[in-house]
Amino acid sequence: MSVTSPAGFRAAGVTAGLKTSGRPDVALVVTEGPRHVAAAVLTSNRVHAAPVTWTRQAVKDGTARAVVLNSGGANACTGPEGFADTHRTAEHTAAALGAAGIGGEDGVGAGDVLVCSTGLIGVRLPMDLLLPGVDAAVAALAADGGDAAAHAIMTTDTRSKQTLVTGETAGAGWSVGGMAKGAGMLAPGLATMLCVLTTDADVDAATADAALRAATAATFDRVDSDGCMSTNDTVILLASGASGATPSAAELTRAVTAACADLARQLVADAEGASHDIAITVRGATTQDAALAVARAVSRSNLFKAAIFGNDPNWGRVLSAVGTVPEDVAPFDALTLDVAVNGVQVCRAGGVGEPRELVDLAAAREVTVEVDLHAGDAEVTLWTNDLTHDYVHENSAYSS
Amino acid sequence: MSVTSPAGFRAAGVTAGLKTSGRPDVALVVTEGPRHVAAAVLTSNRVHAAPVTWTRQAVKDGTARAVVLNSGGANACTGPEGFADTHRTAEHTAAALGAAGIGGEDGVGAGDVLVCSTGLIGVRLPMDLLLPGVDAAVAALAADGGDAAAHAIMTTDTRSKQTLVTGETAGAGWSVGGMAKGAGMLAPGLATMLCVLTTDADVDAATADAALRAATAATFDRVDSDGCMSTNDTVILLASGASGATPSAAELTRAVTAACADLARQLVADAEGASHDIAITVRGATTQDAALAVARAVSRSNLFKAAIFGNDPNWGRVLSAVGTVPEDVAPFDALTLDVAVNGVQVCRAGGVGEPRELVDLAAAREVTVEVDLHAGDAEVTLWTNDLTHDYVHENSAYSS
Repeated sequence: MSVTSPAGFRAAGVTAGLKTSGRPDVALVVTEGPRHVAAAVLTSNRVHAAPVTWTRQAVKDGTARAVVLNSGGANACTGPEGFADTHRTAEHTAAALGAAGIGGEDGVGAGDVLVCSTGLIGVRLPMDLLLPGVDAAVAALAADGGDAAAHAIMTTDTRSKQTLVTGETAGAGWSVGGMAKGAGMLAPGLATMLCVLTTDADVDAATADAALRAATAATFDRVDSDGCMSTNDTVILLASGASGATPSAAELTRAVTAACADLARQLVADAEGASHDIAITVRGATTQDAALAVARAVSRSNLFKAAIFGNDPNWGRVLSAVGTVPEDVAPFDALTLDVAVNGVQVCRAGGVGEPRELVDLAAAREVTVEVDLHAGDAEVTLWTNDLTHDYVHENSAYSS
Repeated sequence: MSVTSPAGFRAAGVTAGLKTSGRPDVALVVTEGPRHVAAAVLTSNRVHAAPVTWTRQAVKDGTARAVVLNSGGANACTGPEGFADTHRTAEHTAAALGAAGIGGEDGVGAGDVLVCSTGLIGVRLPMDLLLPGVDAAVAALAADGGDAAAHAIMTTDTRSKQTLVTGETAGAGWSVGGMAKGAGMLAPGLATMLCVLTTDADVDAATADAALRAATAATFDRVDSDGCMSTNDTVILLASGASGATPSAAELTRAVTAACADLARQLVADAEGASHDIAITVRGATTQDAALAVARAVSRSNLFKAAIFGNDPNWGRVLSAVGTVPEDVAPFDALTLDVAVNGVQVCRAGGVGEPRELVDLAAAREVTVEVDLHAGDAEVTLWTNDLTHDYVHENSAYSS
């Protein structure tokens, strides 16, 4: 299960020397068609990296031949020189792919190469290492290269994140494969640093774009590990059409959403330093946006997150966070709020409920927090992590 | 320098047994007049404690005779029973003060007693301990009792916070005294849990209210230690008129602001687990609100705060936080942003500036971060703290 599981894709992961660890750091995913449909959802951070600027422009025509990704440097906050580096990376990749026979007589244009970078902010990429790395990746392209690619995009990730979802279309076989990396700076839009999805379904660019936006809104945008929005977040969907299957828009959206949900869950499970994965469900809200605003307020309370780390079902910190959401954003009556932690109703009608001693947080990594606003019918689940010593350690020692 | 330094006040701090530590936990501040002017600024958290509900109502007429405060329990999220406890505390205090001769023949009404509580959320106060504690506090009232009162409101504070500012009015002597507590849940509105200010200036209620609101907006509301808004935040100003001095509104505002600024700085210096006090100055903003929004985004970035704990001048994390502020809130061009850390211009025009190695964060507890948006003339300084192992430890182990 990888980005090369669907038909019509090759990939590679190689070591260019960008990481001092000597681990793989350049990945390449190439779509061999017959179609070269592409869509992307990118960080909404106004301070975004050069590759984000590049990819936003390059994907506008709804097509791409390849995605080149590097770890070991984010190429963010690097000025015009950083953008020139990204441009040069795309041109170099396009030329190398063309020389390798990809794209036929026409070859590959730089505008058909999407670029992703992850790692330190504020440092130029060593192009003398990166470009030879691209050549090596082109040479290593393989129909089973997805796993190598997934490993080459890791930074503080302790394991690769990959997925494969089988499409549901009567009488036709197709699938969605994917890889992602992301361990810190996990908050929407988007929640992941880098993600590449591939499908051999035969769909047009508009359908792919709509499916990807719907999928990310319901998955990556509902992960808020540490409240810190990245400068480099990129989710790309490539569609080769190689299966010949033509799913409906709804079928494609379902499969892409399932793939994103799987990867998003893997991101939460491997978040930097976390010891608990916390599913915050807010129900009884007037709207989905209201529910999400309340869930996000809870997910960003350091006091609540530290309490969960301490296996303390401190519902007072949940309520104090809920109460910070303005009334025009989420109408509710504070005196009707219910809170359950791991199924125990610790707070009822804004006051003391079941004894907190009944809640066992030490037993499992996964924790559920349910807040009922009693104001409507909308419900949202947002995933976050606890605030731990290891989070502080990793992020005070790792300069990124 | 305490709440009893201005003329016309008595105070006390006693041990009622609310804290398992056996430390003092009930404080009382009484104004002897001739005037009994009072103003209060209270948390904007929609989930607020019973004493906040009470005090908001009781101070509406602009007068108060006393403030009774307890640590060892926040009386928040305790339902109608919790409000009845607060009501009973005010009535008991009023009766005890009347019996002690305060208020003359008329005695003291419950509506002239403001109430503040701090400590655990979601637990009822032990009234069988608190009410005898109130009696003891009334008996202990003294013209030099301010220091004892300041100690009785401490929770995880490692030291008391007190201040005294001399008023500037030609030919007249008056002052503003104050005490505050607050170590966690430090974020506006307001940034402190509890604060009582006293002045012997002769001012009316409207002037006192305006001065207090202006002062808190410029001081406590510019502290954002951990992004967590409290359920109990209360800042009270009592004016006795005992000096006979009649400062102008501007003179009163200046003195109250100076007192609040001193206490706010003390709160930052004693924030739970912090090892650095960080002054984030945003300049070149189109408006004060825009500057504040940018400063607050930086102050709430756990990655930035963890980096400062690690003595890492990680300006990329400053920029990635700045970029999360929506354009309609704070207009700026990401490619013109400058960042200086401890005076070293580490980021220039959105890209790499001076080497980060030139910044020494280990030398002092105080750190300055300056962001220039190059979009206007407005400037704001917001104080925050770093994210440390001790913060995680205190807040995972201390159930509040």
